[in-house]
Amino acid sequence: MKKYHFELDLRVRDYELDMLGMVNNSVYLNYLEHTRHEFLKTVGIHFDQMFEMDYRLVVTRYEIDYLRLLKSGDRFSVKLRFERKSRAQFLFLQDIYILPDQKPVLNAKVVGTCLSKNGRVKIPEILKKLFLDFETKG
Amino acid sequence: MKKYHFELDLRVRDYELDMLGMVNNSVYLNYLEHTRHEFLKTVGIHFDQMFEMDYRLVVTRYEIDYLRLLKSGDRFSVKLRFERKSRAQFLFLQDIYILPDQKPVLNAKVVGTCLSKNGRVKIPEILKKLFLDFETKG
Amino acid sequence: MKKYHFELDLRVRDYELDMLGMVNNSVYLNYLEHTRHEFLKTVGIHFDQMFEMDYRLVVTRYEIDYLRLLKSGDRFSVKLRFERKSRAQFLFLQDIYILPDQKPVLNAKVVGTCLSKNGRVKIPEILKKLFLDFETKG
Amino acid sequence: MKKYHFELDLRVRDYELDMLGMVNNSVYLNYLEHTRHEFLKTVGIHFDQMFEMDYRLVVTRYEIDYLRLLKSGDRFSVKLRFERKSRAQFLFLQDIYILPDQKPVLNAKVVGTCLSKNGRVKIPEILKKLFLDFETKG
Repeated sequence: MKKYHFELDLRVRDYELDMLGMVNNSVYLNYLEHTRHEFLKTVGIHFDQMFEMDYRLVVTRYEIDYLRLLKSGDRFSVKLRFERKSRAQFLFLQDIYILPDQKPVLNAKVVGTCLSKNGRVKIPEILKKLFLDFETKG
Repeated sequence: MKKYHFELDLRVRDYELDMLGMVNNSVYLNYLEHTRHEFLKTVGIHFDQMFEMDYRLVVTRYEIDYLRLLKSGDRFSVKLRFERKSRAQFLFLQDIYILPDQKPVLNAKVVGTCLSKNGRVKIPEILKKLFLDFETKG
Repeated sequence: MKKYHFELDLRVRDYELDMLGMVNNSVYLNYLEHTRHEFLKTVGIHFDQMFEMDYRLVVTRYEIDYLRLLKSGDRFSVKLRFERKSRAQFLFLQDIYILPDQKPVLNAKVVGTCLSKNGRVKIPEILKKLFLDFETKG
Repeated sequence: MKKYHFELDLRVRDYELDMLGMVNNSVYLNYLEHTRHEFLKTVGIHFDQMFEMDYRLVVTRYEIDYLRLLKSGDRFSVKLRFERKSRAQFLFLQDIYILPDQKPVLNAKVVGTCLSKNGRVKIPEILKKLFLDFETKG
């Protein structure tokens, strides 16, 4: 099993279901984003504060495999592994498991970078530090 | 340029923007789903009627590259190419271009299949016909 | 202070913010609906199971006063009081308070009823029982 | 019939439906907001530009009666009447009608004001002008 750096337990809310009675595909991106932002807070990166300092953390690529469908009331865990992908790109490996039996629901690879208002790549010191920390720790 | 089978022109609505003032990543999946459903209607497949007949068209994989960010009021075109991927899988190639200058915003590959309520693959005749039609037309 | 029958503590997720950096007005209806459904579970009414038995709990009127704006990371409590409004209508008084200081964020009155598929009012026994229970308890 | 100042025709998108197969209550607030923003553009008020100039148009009260449910593919018209409510408050009367038969779907009263970043009421000249224009026209 992958080594994860963070996990967040959540529960399906009924307004997230579509007419099939299943969580709509787009809603999983909300779960994934929320979990990334919560992870980033644990290492001192607050998405809203970054934005005020003209750093925009953006996703440039999503790769998602949907393995199981979540339905009303399901509890699940979103697990996350952080990696540096290149000088200016980060990679989140994010997997969702249903609880309590831990069957896989979704696997995602999320590539992103950090931009300034004018759209240029601009990596803040705290993100560079994160890159170093997670190179060492693995 | 890819040969597309369908396109739909839309416009960003302000409630789709996140705190960066940009369309949130998850919202693009709404645009893509809506365009697929509109295309399917043109070939006689209505998502809600299919569901009533116990056919659930589901996405099993998304691959999305975000190339540009859409913002308040932007007009854009969602183009779609339909292909058969395997006996029971379809593939939508979906690209978004900003209007009027047609710069690329997003490229997506969307793999899906059709399931019955119990989760088994179950392909309706009208989808089999679609597979055949689009093999011939290319 | 009102006597509440149920409360649920939640936290703002960044995807719920709009371009003002504040929770969008429409998102509060999600918070309110989710809290009602969680309350209903505690009295044995599961929204999805009701639907399978052809009972649709629907809202017919919302009255909402927005007193404060929630922003990134805010914790808040959604409190709820259940009342019978008429023979076939229920009323939820729902208030949101920011945590930990309990300042009011929103006051809502939510009127609803229960319909069958054909749109006729149809109140299940378990809801009639709920009406009685909450008349007694106050 | 009310005298309306603006109307916008829209169509239900499948991702807006909840597990009942009906447009979720919260989604109507998106329709209403989008229509207000489109109306405001016609009188020269762009929500995003206002925000950059530190004017935040906010809703302080919603009153909504749901009369009919919208479902997959339904076309509808959102009609709007703008009124000044007080020195610093505006009122939108917004009604939704299903198309083509114009049966009423929803009636809403939406009260709002304009705030600066620090939360103080701050009415821009262009909004004062709008108040005057619509007093004269009726």
